[in-house]
Formats: sequence, structure tokens, C-alpha cells
Amino acid sequence: MNYRIEHDLIGKKEVPEDAYYGIHTLRAFENFQISGQCIHKELIIALAMVKKAAAIANMRVGSLSEKIGNAIVKACDEIISGKFHNQFIVDALQGGAGTSTNMNINEVISNRAIELLGGKKGDYSIVHPLEHVNMSQSTNDVFPTAVRIAAIKLLKPLSESFADLQTALQIKEEEFSDTIKMGRTELQDAVPVMLGQEFGAYAQAIARDRWRIYKVEERLRQVNIGGTAVGTGLNADKTYVFLAIEILRDITGLGLARAEYMMDPTQNNDVFVEVSGMLKAAAVNLIKISNDIRLMSSGPKCGLMEITIPEVQAGSSIMPGKVNPVIPEAVKQAAYQVIACDGAITMGAQAGEFELNFTLPLIAHNLFMEIDLLYNVTRLFINKCIKGIKADKNRLSRMVENSFTYAVALSPYIGYEKASEIAMIAKDEGRTIREIAIEKGLFTKEELDIIFNQYEMTKPGIPGKKKLEDG
Amino acid sequence: MNYRIEHDLIGKKEVPEDAYYGIHTLRAFENFQISGQCIHKELIIALAMVKKAAAIANMRVGSLSEKIGNAIVKACDEIISGKFHNQFIVDALQGGAGTSTNMNINEVISNRAIELLGGKKGDYSIVHPLEHVNMSQSTNDVFPTAVRIAAIKLLKPLSESFADLQTALQIKEEEFSDTIKMGRTELQDAVPVMLGQEFGAYAQAIARDRWRIYKVEERLRQVNIGGTAVGTGLNADKTYVFLAIEILRDITGLGLARAEYMMDPTQNNDVFVEVSGMLKAAAVNLIKISNDIRLMSSGPKCGLMEITIPEVQAGSSIMPGKVNPVIPEAVKQAAYQVIACDGAITMGAQAGEFELNFTLPLIAHNLFMEIDLLYNVTRLFINKCIKGIKADKNRLSRMVENSFTYAVALSPYIGYEKASEIAMIAKDEGRTIREIAIEKGLFTKEELDIIFNQYEMTKPGIPGKKKLEDG
Amino acid sequence: MNYRIEHDLIGKKEVPEDAYYGIHTLRAFENFQISGQCIHKELIIALAMVKKAAAIANMRVGSLSEKIGNAIVKACDEIISGKFHNQFIVDALQGGAGTSTNMNINEVISNRAIELLGGKKGDYSIVHPLEHVNMSQSTNDVFPTAVRIAAIKLLKPLSESFADLQTALQIKEEEFSDTIKMGRTELQDAVPVMLGQEFGAYAQAIARDRWRIYKVEERLRQVNIGGTAVGTGLNADKTYVFLAIEILRDITGLGLARAEYMMDPTQNNDVFVEVSGMLKAAAVNLIKISNDIRLMSSGPKCGLMEITIPEVQAGSSIMPGKVNPVIPEAVKQAAYQVIACDGAITMGAQAGEFELNFTLPLIAHNLFMEIDLLYNVTRLFINKCIKGIKADKNRLSRMVENSFTYAVALSPYIGYEKASEIAMIAKDEGRTIREIAIEKGLFTKEELDIIFNQYEMTKPGIPGKKKLEDG
Amino acid sequence: MNYRIEHDLIGKKEVPEDAYYGIHTLRAFENFQISGQCIHKELIIALAMVKKAAAIANMRVGSLSEKIGNAIVKACDEIISGKFHNQFIVDALQGGAGTSTNMNINEVISNRAIELLGGKKGDYSIVHPLEHVNMSQSTNDVFPTAVRIAAIKLLKPLSESFADLQTALQIKEEEFSDTIKMGRTELQDAVPVMLGQEFGAYAQAIARDRWRIYKVEERLRQVNIGGTAVGTGLNADKTYVFLAIEILRDITGLGLARAEYMMDPTQNNDVFVEVSGMLKAAAVNLIKISNDIRLMSSGPKCGLMEITIPEVQAGSSIMPGKVNPVIPEAVKQAAYQVIACDGAITMGAQAGEFELNFTLPLIAHNLFMEIDLLYNVTRLFINKCIKGIKADKNRLSRMVENSFTYAVALSPYIGYEKASEIAMIAKDEGRTIREIAIEKGLFTKEELDIIFNQYEMTKPGIPGKKKLEDG
Repeated sequence: MNYRIEHDLIGKKEVPEDAYYGIHTLRAFENFQISGQCIHKELIIALAMVKKAAAIANMRVGSLSEKIGNAIVKACDEIISGKFHNQFIVDALQGGAGTSTNMNINEVISNRAIELLGGKKGDYSIVHPLEHVNMSQSTNDVFPTAVRIAAIKLLKPLSESFADLQTALQIKEEEFSDTIKMGRTELQDAVPVMLGQEFGAYAQAIARDRWRIYKVEERLRQVNIGGTAVGTGLNADKTYVFLAIEILRDITGLGLARAEYMMDPTQNNDVFVEVSGMLKAAAVNLIKISNDIRLMSSGPKCGLMEITIPEVQAGSSIMPGKVNPVIPEAVKQAAYQVIACDGAITMGAQAGEFELNFTLPLIAHNLFMEIDLLYNVTRLFINKCIKGIKADKNRLSRMVENSFTYAVALSPYIGYEKASEIAMIAKDEGRTIREIAIEKGLFTKEELDIIFNQYEMTKPGIPGKKKLEDG
Repeated sequence: MNYRIEHDLIGKKEVPEDAYYGIHTLRAFENFQISGQCIHKELIIALAMVKKAAAIANMRVGSLSEKIGNAIVKACDEIISGKFHNQFIVDALQGGAGTSTNMNINEVISNRAIELLGGKKGDYSIVHPLEHVNMSQSTNDVFPTAVRIAAIKLLKPLSESFADLQTALQIKEEEFSDTIKMGRTELQDAVPVMLGQEFGAYAQAIARDRWRIYKVEERLRQVNIGGTAVGTGLNADKTYVFLAIEILRDITGLGLARAEYMMDPTQNNDVFVEVSGMLKAAAVNLIKISNDIRLMSSGPKCGLMEITIPEVQAGSSIMPGKVNPVIPEAVKQAAYQVIACDGAITMGAQAGEFELNFTLPLIAHNLFMEIDLLYNVTRLFINKCIKGIKADKNRLSRMVENSFTYAVALSPYIGYEKASEIAMIAKDEGRTIREIAIEKGLFTKEELDIIFNQYEMTKPGIPGKKKLEDG
Repeated sequence: MNYRIEHDLIGKKEVPEDAYYGIHTLRAFENFQISGQCIHKELIIALAMVKKAAAIANMRVGSLSEKIGNAIVKACDEIISGKFHNQFIVDALQGGAGTSTNMNINEVISNRAIELLGGKKGDYSIVHPLEHVNMSQSTNDVFPTAVRIAAIKLLKPLSESFADLQTALQIKEEEFSDTIKMGRTELQDAVPVMLGQEFGAYAQAIARDRWRIYKVEERLRQVNIGGTAVGTGLNADKTYVFLAIEILRDITGLGLARAEYMMDPTQNNDVFVEVSGMLKAAAVNLIKISNDIRLMSSGPKCGLMEITIPEVQAGSSIMPGKVNPVIPEAVKQAAYQVIACDGAITMGAQAGEFELNFTLPLIAHNLFMEIDLLYNVTRLFINKCIKGIKADKNRLSRMVENSFTYAVALSPYIGYEKASEIAMIAKDEGRTIREIAIEKGLFTKEELDIIFNQYEMTKPGIPGKKKLEDG
Repeated sequence: MNYRIEHDLIGKKEVPEDAYYGIHTLRAFENFQISGQCIHKELIIALAMVKKAAAIANMRVGSLSEKIGNAIVKACDEIISGKFHNQFIVDALQGGAGTSTNMNINEVISNRAIELLGGKKGDYSIVHPLEHVNMSQSTNDVFPTAVRIAAIKLLKPLSESFADLQTALQIKEEEFSDTIKMGRTELQDAVPVMLGQEFGAYAQAIARDRWRIYKVEERLRQVNIGGTAVGTGLNADKTYVFLAIEILRDITGLGLARAEYMMDPTQNNDVFVEVSGMLKAAAVNLIKISNDIRLMSSGPKCGLMEITIPEVQAGSSIMPGKVNPVIPEAVKQAAYQVIACDGAITMGAQAGEFELNFTLPLIAHNLFMEIDLLYNVTRLFINKCIKGIKADKNRLSRMVENSFTYAVALSPYIGYEKASEIAMIAKDEGRTIREIAIEKGLFTKEELDIIFNQYEMTKPGIPGKKKLEDG
């Protein structure tokens, strides 16, 4: 390989001739062999948008020549369109609050701009990574701003994916709206519900997630671009400070606003804890629904066997014909990972000191991981599981009929204590509530037919009461 | 001790004659010797409010006689006013989704109502804990409703306490508005800020907490009273279902609303994860501020010594005269505990199955712990620490003057690379940026006096630029 | 109330005349109104043991007079025997690395010793809390040493309780050693196992817990008494340093050893993370076993109904006769709380700086909470659940017979693919593997009787192979 | 691309002609688009070792022909040597307890063996993935066994890396053995220590980590190969069961042992919680040391400036000459990530049900992540930070001299209260302890020179006592 020589305050270093990145990136690459993962694609794009906005603002205030500025803008546009992403080689879990990634994009833009102006990569007299590309900026305003932009961009489809999941669940709510089944509390038989009602309850929870994810995005809109090193705006022209955010709003198409108090988002990361907390709530709901689906589809002969879910692959390398609920399992695992990521974000966010929190790379890495995981598994969940759920209506209704749940229906008529007694006899003697209630002469068969109305039992009110009173 | 005999489906049992609780409570007390902690006082009160509302609603729909109903209401009022709290003996970490606590309050109300009606405790033919006190209810709507009410009641003063903390910080923001000091990023000298600006940034973060805690309370307003066992409302008269919530709204004075889909709050606990997530964000901010205060007050001779905090107690049993930052330390410890509680809530909330989540006692216990801890330490923090913070303006300004931060101010004039070079020389030779800049003939002493304006360095813009241009 | 006046470096203060604690304790009590919980009883006792050992060592090296020393020893003995525990009023979550608690015990011992010597509480010229009781000590060696002693004392019965749980499970292993049932993987029917084998697997896991808890105690034996303020032993006579640990070993009856490098345990708390990590592993096993027991006992008509567990209390305030698995639920909740406590300990342990970690009160509080919770729920689990588990052998065997598990038994004879095909037909057509295998002419009825041997299916080897070969 | 057609119980599917994986892998690849990460390289190798051992054992017991068996062994050897790793395309966070990865390796080995035997990929009549490659095995014994092998292999170098870190710290302990500095507790000046002593305390903590990581590997040696589906060994020849582990021990060179109770490791994952708990303890120690190094190197003018660390890259895009402690920051971030991974492992391990825990892919993914992160950052920490730490001896000693620490040295001579008083005067009046002690006529200058011996203050004993007594 051929190399060019670059230098920094530490000394000289060979940089691959083809590389758009430069010495700062290369040092960081070598310093941080940590997670083996690079920064998120959306973060690269968001950084390029910030750099573009800064360049335009710098041109407008006259700090940057049109020639250099336009070359920078062009280079940014290329990155935004997906080019040069392989030049972002610094580890996602880098030390230094994102400086290395900021250096990385500065260098890539600079070298690309140099090329566009007919120069040779590494000739920073043409376009300098720090003096031109990073003009009026600091890692400490660029990086937090870009992380927020990337997060907002990723949250939008996530919110939509939860909306789709809600819809998928509501379709099942409708489909199973008259499929009666045994409701359970603490895994014990309780009182009847419609299977559709259960899907309705899931849909409600997911609707909350959708709404939270949709709304929480607002918390990320306050950015600190223009705040430079510590949020005071030192070395940024005042007009630039006002222009940069406006231009950035146009470029991103997002409702970004300059934080009134730019020192705040520079040093405080509680909004990421807030966002992550919302995503964790979503993870919790996904786990709950997956729990239920795994339980309801347990079987095929020795489980609850209330529903079947689509078979998406063979389930065992030794047990022929076995099919496992791998999709809800994948959902649960991803959700656990999301909860774990929330832990990383929390620990990062509490580790701030003074004007900055050096853990923003950690926070960003885990936040994007959370969003990607949730997006991916909601797609899976909808398409490879929820949509294909089926139920055997007769079997489910029969289970209710054979249960002791009718003791609850008797309770308003004969009191809790007596109903309780009947239930215990039924259990002990392996008989039905119906039999014992008749045997004890408490009700006639006809009365019980009115009281033991499974459908009425899934709605507010005392089953049979009106009919018996009217009767 | 004298005893009365009570019975349940398991058998007979001696209950202390004086006890307002009964056999169900006693069994639960014996079954759950776990955490050694009882349920929260506010939860007792909230439960009594729910019971009162239910009794009134039951009277209105004609299910409960005025005589019994009014006795129940009176007993509830006594509990609400703080009486009989020592009768709530069941462990906070009880199995069974709150049933034992519901049984506990049913029995206490019942026995007190029996007394009020001239009967003898234990004579449940007068007022029955389940048939009268628990009429139209289930643990599964009573307990989640009461937990939400108690949480809302506790969140209000918490929000106010954060508002007070914000105010306390803003008073310091004002007080130190012209106290220049070295800003730091990654614990390294960065660029100057006003000490007041730092307190301003803290106040911003705390303002967000205040707002979050204020707003998140709304998420708890949707209650499932009337949903009974699984949220379907089985055995609750339809009119009762509508009345109960209205009456409860009046009793509590809170903007409660009946969940449209009552099966949802019966089984889903994601709102507690959401609330707890917000509290965790607040904990994170408290830790960050405590970190800074501990660092700034480090000393008295070998630390940063930027501020002093009030001495609230002797700091060492061996080192005479040592005083420690015990208040920020207590704040940090409480905040870590809050973060840990959030973990318990998350694990609880993901453990739901079907129509219920049996971990609500765990969730409630940890949620109340979070709120109490945050409330207590914000009070401490304000009164025993923040209010008494002092700073030595001269010392802080001198630190800035002696630093290498002026290299940043030179950068817009001579470029990043040259400024970097000067900074390295200054560091290596132990000299000031000023000296070297003059020595190199880059600026006159007068120009540097204009450029090295500490106050301008804490605001947007390039220090000295305008003045030099106006020249 | 009557008061005496005490003073410290901050000023004067009224202390209740009856109080054995003094001004330092009182300030700390007022400063730390945080968790509402006092320190653990075992910690009080352990502190008194450390103080006693120090007093004896100080007497032996001639630093402390016999008169004062013996009075101190006597006061310590009283505390060890359970007296004066109500004098330990400082909040468990105190700031200051335990100084306030050390001050608390110094004052209590001092005032009690003063009394024993005929003086009046508060007359510290007789016995001084710091100059006499705390002689040669610092909070920073006393508190970490006492926390370790208390933890060891609590871990011993915990280890025994896990041993008891192991025994209880092994009794069930024996009892159900020929109760065949369907084994499940991913909640789907897999291959038969003995119910006893399942309890055997639980017992294995619990045996590991028992062993871990038994062994991990060793990690706590290295104590830093004698290290004083930062572990260097400053102001402690060299002979005292050697004597103190020997005497403490005698007093406690524990195999304590002086850390070779006393600065290490003074500042590093990773051993608590290690201990807590072990307890967390135990919590995880308890959850797993509880999961299974809840699932197996689900019913009574619409669940798996594989076992019944003892009914310990009524399960519902609305559903007569409902009984819930409240004991496994309590176990799970406690286990979740333990996992949460582990989070607090981890956050505490990572927050150390330089010669000390100020979060030891937080760590101790959570560690003791973990141990107590695990101890309490293992007792419950054994006595109120495991011991009373029953199974219906016939029902369990019938479930196996009706399942598709025989496809696995066919696999070695006809290959995975063919066996898979038969399983799919059986599922689709609702028939048995047996029928289809015969229908397809693959085996005779007699051969299948040999191959489909449920008992052989629970052991290594290919069911029926030997018999068919011997044929 | 050209395709071949494969089929499974769900239907037919096109598989790329070149692919060594088959239809099961492809379905899993499509089903699990989740984390975007494949399984760990060491896990691939470990799986191949297990498959090789099984093939050899199957040949020995006569279940597998030499021809097919040897082809399988050869294919395994190729994978072990690093070939075909790009054929392992299934997401690390797959549903299904590892079945998809087991299918993946079965297919890759099968197709490679087919090729070696002159056949065409996809012609499973020659070597069948399940009937031959997976013979006598199940995912449920293969995958847990392979995860343990991979973990052991990764833990060995990790233990060595901690040993290296210990050595690096001990070299600094030696180097700074007479560099006196101010010791700090709670960030406040305490008493003097040697800088070398601090590194010694770090080395002690890291020594414990090294030891734990070295020992904990033993917990992973119990494997369940031979247990097949649920640990009972169904369908595995008894001789095979005994042979397989022996052969596997030879192949891996590790001290593996067959679990006595194979159902236990099949379903219980507490050992991973234990291992992860140890790694978490190591993470905690790394954070503590990083905290200290960041604090000690804070500056260059407004921090503690006790040490300097190597400059590994430019620290700011806006502040010329700024250098940040990026290596300790990277260490801390990685350590936080490790703690987060521990959370994922815990949640996974508690989610087991019956004979299996479906979250083993999640557990393995996070465990390997922990190990890799810790390995990578210990290398970094040693080579790019610890080794290059320097200290300015004179400056550090001067700080001690100017502090109030001498009050502690006075305490044994004049008592805590008087010493405290002097310390307060010194602080208030900004004077030295020395001055005031002389002024008050308590000591002569000569006596204080003897008492205020910085070096004696870092060791057990009362500074100056012997000399004054000998006098």
C-alpha cells in the first residue's frame, strides 16, 4: 500500500494514500480497538448534515470562502447520499466524547473537498479539517446535535412500526371478538374473557408505546449546535449561531430548535435516559405479549394449546416435527437486550462531570442499538407471528365450561362464602359447580342457564341478573 | 392475649381479639415474612379512599344498605385521617398481586364498621369484609387503582421539591453570574465559564425533571376501578362502574379517569416503567450535580477548591477538622438506590402473564421508595448544601488567567494548528500563552489584552474581534 | 424532655438527656432523613465486636487504661448481647462512608462506659468517644471490617437455608422418581422426563448456590482493621495492628485475617460485587424454579395441572375458591428485589475515588437486604411450598402417551426426516404417532410397545434398541 | 446467482448454489434480522470441536460409517482452522435456544463433507445434516457445551491480560514507592500516602480479578454433551455418552467433565450469571482505577495535576493543544457496557422454563461481548496509559506540606478535640498547622520536625513517637 505522511501534535504518521480519513482518525482507530463496531450509519449521515449546515452558515457570515465552503457542502452531500461510509473506521465505543468521530468526519469531508477542488488528499492547505470543516464548531456541539438528529430519524419509523403492531393486534382483537376463553390471573383460572379482548389489551399497551415513541422524539429536538466547546458559543460568530440551526432545520427537515441554554445539552444527558426509559417500557410490553403468546401456543398436546402461531422453521435438531415459538423468543431476547442497553445509558448519563459527559459515544451506541432492535423485532413479530395466529373456538369455550369459574357468577346471588364452599366441593370431588349448585337446591337448571352465560361474564354487570329479575 | 376464632377456606385460626384485621390478613402476615417492611402510608390511605368510593357507589345503585354502607364510609374516613395504620401488617413484598393487602383493608374496615354499628369484632354477619366492603370489587381493580392514587399524591410534592431545587440553583446562578472560572471537559481545562452558568445548566436539567414529574403524573390517572377481576367488570353493576370513578374523583380531588379499556391497566404495568424511567432521569441529574459539587469543593488544600459547601457535621473519627461532602454523597447514594429500584420495577413489569401481573406489590414498593428517596434528598440538597455554597471569585479568576485556555482565543486569528503549537510550547516550557504569543511577534500586548477577555470568552462570538476590527 | 448540651466543631447542640448517642449522631440523624431505615442489627453487633477488640488491643499495648478499657469492653458486650440497639438512629443510607455510624457507636459505647464508671452521660472527660473508644481506629477500617463480619454472620445461615432447600428438593426428587411426565423445551412438548428428575435438576442448581454462598464467605475474611484512615495504619501502634485482628478473630469466632495490603479493602469494594453476584445467581435459580412450579401448578382446570402446591391462603377477594401460587410469587418478587440490590451494589462499588469509596453504607444496606430476602424466602419456599407438592401420576403419564413425543423414539430407526413426516401427519390429522407408524407398515404393534417405552425414554440410550436386537 | 432447491417440514426453498449452509440456516437467517451481528468466531470453532467429537464417538460405537464419519471430521477440522466462518450467517440473537446455529453448523459440515466425498452440495443422501452430523446430539447439549468451551478459551487470555495489568501496576508501585502525595477520602484531603501505594492497591484489586477469572473458568467445565434433548440422554448410545466427553476433552485440550446430572446444565444458566458477576467485579475495578487516573491527571493547570498520562491523540477539534484522558475513558465506557451485558445475562438466566432456557443465544452473545471488551481495554489500558504514567515528585510532596494533614499527626499527642481546634483555626486563618501548634506553645519546632514526618505518616504507627520517647 502507498502512504502519505500526516502530522499532528504528537508527531508524524503514515496514512494510506487512498484514505479519505487522516491522521487523527487513524490514531483513534488504533487507540480504540474495543467493541469492533463502527458508528451507526444514521449518525454518519447526521454528522454530515451538521457539517453542511455549519459550512453554509460560515459562508453566509463571511467566515468561509464560497470556494472552500461549496466544496465542503458537496462532500457532505455525498456522505448524506451514502458514500464514503466505509471511511468511518473509529470504534463506536471510543474515548473522548466523540472527538475522534468528529475528527473522522472533518478529515473525510476535507479530503473529499480537496479532491473536488482538484487537490490531492492530505493537502490541507486547500481545505483544512479543523480550520475550515470544523469552523465555528466543536465536537461538543456537533456530536450531541448529530446524535439527536440520528435518534429522531430512527425513532420515526420505530413509532410507525409500533403503530403497525397495534394495527396487527387490533385485527386479531376483531377476529377473536367472540372467541370466549378462560381468563387467568397468577396463571390460575379466573373468569372468562374474549380472546379478542386480550389482543385488545395488548393493542392498548402498544398504542401507548407508539405514542410515547412518537412524543419523546420532541425531547431530542433541542440541540446545542453553535454552543461550541462548552455551550457558551465561544469562537462562533453570533450570526452564525442563529443561522446554523435554521439551516440545519432545513437540511434535516426536522423541527430542531436551538437550546435556549446551550450549556445544558452539552453536559446533561438525561434526555437520553428519558428516551431510553420509554423504549424500555416498550420492551416490557413486548415481553409481556410474548409471554402470553408462548404460553397460549404451548403444546401441541401437553400445553395450554389455546392458539397456534405460524411455523417459521423446524424447531429441533433431534425432535422431529417439533416447532418452537422462535419469533416471540427472539422478541423477548431483543427486549432483554434493550433493557440492558438502558442500563448502559443510565450509567453513562450519571457519569458526567462539569461541562461535558465523556460517555456520549456509549450512550449513542446503546440508544441506536435499542431502536434498531425494537424496530427489527416489531417487524418480525407482526409479519412472522401475530398475523398468523389462529384459535380453536370450540376448544376454548369448552375449557371455560369445564372450569370452576361459575362460582364467581354465583357469588352475587349467594355470597362469597357460600360460593367459595361450593367451589371447594367441586374441586375436591372433581365435579362441576353446576351440579353442586343444583344438588344443594340453590338454583334450578334453568336459572343456572341464565346465570352461567359465558358472554355476559365478559362484560360489566352481574350475569343473568336482569333476566332473572325481569324473568 | 385474648383471641377470637375466625375461619376461611383453609380452616380456623385464632386472631387477637383487639385486632381489626382478620384471618386472611393474619395468614398473609405469617406467609410473607420477607422484607420486614409494611406497605406505604399513602397506599393505606388510597385504599381507604377506593373502598369509600365503592361503598358510596354501591349504596347509590342500591346494592348496599345505607346502614352498612355508611358504617363502611365512616371507617374509611378514619383510616384516611390516619387511624388504624398499625393494623396493616402484611409485608410489602407479598405474593398474590395485592390480594392480601386488599383482604387486610377489607377486614380492618369491616371490623371497624361492625364496632361502629355496635357489634363485636369478628361478627361478620353485621358487615362482611368481602360481601360488603369488597362489594363490586376485586383486588385486581382496587389495588392498581390505589397504587396509582398513592403515586400521584406522592409525585405532587416531589415535583414541587424539584421546583424548589431549581429555584435554589437559579439563586446561585444569579449570585455567581459574574464569577468566572475554568470550564472543564473530560476533567481537562477547557474554556472559561461563569460559575453561575454552571448552576444555570444544573437548573435547566432540574427544570426538566420537575416538568417530567409534573407531567408523568397524568399517565397514572387512568384507573381500572370497576374492572373487577380481569378488567371486564364482571359482577359489578354497570351503573356502579360509572359512579365509582366519579365518586373516587371527588374523594381524592385528583383528575382520575376510568380507563376506556379496563383490561389494559389490570394486566399492563408499563406506565410504572415510564414513571420510574422519569424518576431515574432525575436521579441521573442529581448524581451529575453532586459529582460536580463534590469535585468543586474538593480540598481544602489539595483539591480543586472552587467552592465551599456548608459543614453539616464532623467528617472523620480520626482526622481532626476534616469535613466531608456528606450531603452530595447522600444524594448520590439515594440516586443509585433509585436506579436500582427502577431495575426492580422493570423486572416486575415484564413478568406479567395474561390478565394480571402478580408483581404489582414489588412495583409499588419500589416506586414509592424511589419517590420518597428523591423527595428526601432534594430537601436535604437544597437546605443543607446548595443554599450555602460559596465561591472565592479571585481565586477562580486567577486559575483561568494561569491556564492555557487563551490558545482557544487565538485560534480564530492564527488557525488551529499554530494555536496548538503555541499551547504545546507553553505546556512544555511551563510558560503562558500570552508570553509566547508576544515573543513570536504574533500580537502586541495591547491586542492580547483585547483578545484575552475572560468575560467575552463566556459568550458566543470571537473574543476581541469586534473591538480589533473597530480598532 | 430534658437535654444535655454537647458541642463539636460546628457548635453546640441539645441532646436528649437519656440518649446514649451524642451530638455527632444527632447531627447525622438530622442530616440524613433519607431511607427511613436504620442499619442492620448484625452490623450493630459487628461494630461492637470491632470496638471491643480495639479496646482490648489498646489496653494490651498500654495506650488505654484498664479502667476505661474495661468499661468500654463491658459496654460493647452489652450491645453485642442486644442492648441499646434503639440508640442506633442514623439512617442506613447516610453520606460519609459510615462515619456517622462509627460516631454513633463510639458515642453509645462512651456514654454507657461513662455510666458504668459512675459518671453522667455526656461527661466525655471520663470516656471520650473518639480519644478512647475510637482509639487507633478510623471509620475507614472499623466500618468495612464490621460490614464484612456482619455479612459473614448472615451468610452462614443463608448457606444452610439453601442446603435445606436442596434437601427439600431432593426429597421430592426421590418421591417423584418414577412419575413420568412430558419434558418441555421452549414451552413445547419435548421428550419424557421423570418429575423427580426435574426436582433433581433444581436441587443441583440450589446445591451450587449453597456451595457458592458457603465459599464466597471466604472472600470477606480479609479485613482492614488497623489500617485506620486510608489503610496505611497511621496513628495505630504497630503491635496494636497485629493484636487487634487476633482479638477480633477470637471475639467473632470467624476466620478473619488482616489484609496484607490494607489500603486495598479500604478503597476497593469489588468483593461485595462478587458476593452479590453469587447471591444474584441464587436469585436467578429461585426464579427459574418458581417459574416451573407456577406453570406446573397452573389450573385448576385450564392450566397444565401437573402438580398441586399447598394452599396457604384464599387467593381472591372476588373469585370464591381461587387459590394462587403466592409463595412462588413471593419468592420471585424477592428474587427480583435481590437482582435490583445487586445493581445498587455495582453502582456503589464503581463510584470509589482514591483511598475510599463513600458508598459503603449503600453497599452494606443492599447486601444485607439481599441476604435477608433470600433467607426469608428460602424458608418460606421450603416450608410452605416445596414440602407440600403433590402430583397425579396417572394424569402425567397419560399426557405423555397422548403426545407426539414418540416421533423422537422412532427417529433412530427410520431417520429424522421420516419421523418428522409422521409427526406432521399426526399433528395435522389429530392422530397418534403409533397409529400412523403402524398404518405406514413401518413397525408392528409389538415392536412399538417395545420402542415406546416411556421409562427408557428418560435415560441415555435408544429406547427398545437392545430388546429388539436381542429380539 | 444460481440456486439449489432444498426442503424442510415447511416446504421448499432456494438456497444459493455456493452456500455450504442449507435451508434451515437460510430460514433462520431470514427469520432473525435482529442484531445484525453473527455468532462469535470462538463459538463457531467450539461447535466444530463438539461435532468432531460426536462424529468420532459415533464411529467408535459403530453408529456412523468410517467413510461418512471421517468426512465429517475433516470438515470440522477445516472449520476449526478458520475456514467457512462466513457461512455462519444466523443472527447472534436468534430465537430458539441455539437450534438455528446448530442447524447452521450441521449443514455447513454436511455440505463440506459431501464435497469431500465427491458429492454435490445439497445431496444429503451422502451426508445428512441431522441424521449423520447431528447424530446422538441435540441443540440442547451441543450448544451449551460449545458456549462453555468458547467461554473458557476466551477467559484464559483474559486472565493473562489481567495478570499483565497487575504487573504494569506493580511496576508503577515500585517506581513511585517513595513518591509521597496527599491521600484523599471522599475527595477531601486525608493523610499522606505513597503514590506507589495507590498503584499497589490497584494491583491488589486487579490481582483478585485475575484470580477470579482464572478460577471461574472451572465452573464452565461441566458440560452436558450426551444429554441430548433435555439432559436425559435419550437416543444417545450409552457408550457414546461416555466416549464423547473424553474425545472432546482431547480435542479441546480443556479439562472438561461430563456433568453428573446432565439435565442441570441443559436447563440452568446460573453459572453464566456467576461468570458474568466476576467479570462485572473486574469492570468495577477498572472503573475505579480509571476514575483515579482521570482525577490525578486532571489539569493541565486547573486540576489536581498529580500525574501525567501519555498523549495518544489530539483531544479537541476546537481547543488547540488540549489532550484528554481518552484511554481511561474508553476503559470506563467498556466497563459500563460490561455491566449492562451482565444485566442481559441475568434477565436471560432467570427466564428459563422446564427443561431448557431459550435465551442462551442472548446469554452467550453478552458473555462473549463482556470478555472481548475487557480483553481489549485491558490491553489498551496497559500499553497506552499505565505504562507511560509519570509523576512530579516535588509538586506532590509540596501539596502534602501545605495541607492540614498534620493535624492527624498531632492527634495522638494532644487528643482529637484539640487537634480539631487547631485544624479549624488553620483553615479559617489560612495558616499552617505547624505555625499554630508552635504559636500555642504545644510543641517546639524540633519536635514538629520529628512528628511531621511525611514518610512515617504512610506506615503503621504514631509518627515521631519512638524518636521522641527515645529522645
